[in-house]
Amino acid sequence: MVLKYYYDLLSQPSRAVYIFLKMNKIPFEPAVVNLGGGEHLTEEFREKHSKFQKVPFIHHDDFRLTESVAIVRYLAREYHVKEHWYPQEIRAQARVDEYLEWNHLNVRAGCARYFFDKLMGPMMTGKQPSDEQVKKNQKAMEKTLTDFERIFLSSEAPFITGTEISFADLQAACEIEQPRLAGYEPRDHFSKIKTWLENVKSECQPYYDEAHKPLEAWLKKIQKKAAKL
Amino acid sequence: MVLKYYYDLLSQPSRAVYIFLKMNKIPFEPAVVNLGGGEHLTEEFREKHSKFQKVPFIHHDDFRLTESVAIVRYLAREYHVKEHWYPQEIRAQARVDEYLEWNHLNVRAGCARYFFDKLMGPMMTGKQPSDEQVKKNQKAMEKTLTDFERIFLSSEAPFITGTEISFADLQAACEIEQPRLAGYEPRDHFSKIKTWLENVKSECQPYYDEAHKPLEAWLKKIQKKAAKL
Repeated sequence: MVLKYYYDLLSQPSRAVYIFLKMNKIPFEPAVVNLGGGEHLTEEFREKHSKFQKVPFIHHDDFRLTESVAIVRYLAREYHVKEHWYPQEIRAQARVDEYLEWNHLNVRAGCARYFFDKLMGPMMTGKQPSDEQVKKNQKAMEKTLTDFERIFLSSEAPFITGTEISFADLQAACEIEQPRLAGYEPRDHFSKIKTWLENVKSECQPYYDEAHKPLEAWLKKIQKKAAKL
Repeated sequence: MVLKYYYDLLSQPSRAVYIFLKMNKIPFEPAVVNLGGGEHLTEEFREKHSKFQKVPFIHHDDFRLTESVAIVRYLAREYHVKEHWYPQEIRAQARVDEYLEWNHLNVRAGCARYFFDKLMGPMMTGKQPSDEQVKKNQKAMEKTLTDFERIFLSSEAPFITGTEISFADLQAACEIEQPRLAGYEPRDHFSKIKTWLENVKSECQPYYDEAHKPLEAWLKKIQKKAAKL
């Protein structure tokens, strides 16, 4: 069976699933979707590839699946990946699920909104957000990062659910890398997040850096442009 | 083992899990948390009950779990509930998961924000939202309900994943009932949603009505108050 993975490495969950695939040596055909170019928004794309019109998604022969968490849960069972990445044991799985479900309206919503309103929105519309809006978004993001440290990084354990890395760590880390593009470095404000990010990163080399290469390149471009002003 | 279920029926996912428990005849000790009274926000609650400070959550003897989707996935395996509610077969499960993951930042975010900004926020702060804000939220909610019909109710099947009901239907239905409290009835604008809601409701009686009793009572109170003005 052929697994085709559709993604854009500038999308946070696309990076998380990409690292998961690579770390688990799951063979796949890469299919890059250029979100910036709006490729996913066409009628043709909707018919031919995905009615959800977003990434990441997979085609596993004739089986199409969207949503990063659903994809990882599916792949973990289809490919029998190592237990720690997505446990099959009931309680251990529930602990990973608890983070993955909490993530959507907390870490993801907080970090992605800050990034979108401050960088992506203005790039698309040419309209800058008000200072008040940026401050409000920053406050909401900092609230969620504070909650994240308090709820999930409160023990001395190196990862969210304990001594071993799981997909929950990948999902969280890839979201928390994103606001750097809009000028906010969570590492400078949250010491537990800083240490934990180092753990995730060093556990997933060389794929962590590989997945974040387009983000780092974009960051350099932004910094260069800012230096010229 | 004792299963203690903490909930408030005015919370959408609390209702969904409540109906799931009742339909599957899973015995539980009910523990009502009064969200309106702010009971969940105290330090004592955080220590004693849940560091997440939200509902629903369960205590299954010494095992504590938050997040409705994580809870249902856990209970489905612990109690061997009927396959259609939350399938164990890999692809059928992935289809239910796909909706449940999509739900957070789409149906839930859209409907809950409309409800919160128009009704809950003003009740808590005494400050009314601007017309512009209400309109913006309504537009976002209608976009997500349009997507919901297009992506998940496009076939002639009575439920989200086909001929049988799953937890995805409960989760979606309980969210879509909520904006009525703020004066918006999705049934009046979306005919496929209207038919599908009838299917979900009639499949889950008497528990659907039982779970929505506090919502209906609140709605009557609001309408009575409005009639007096």
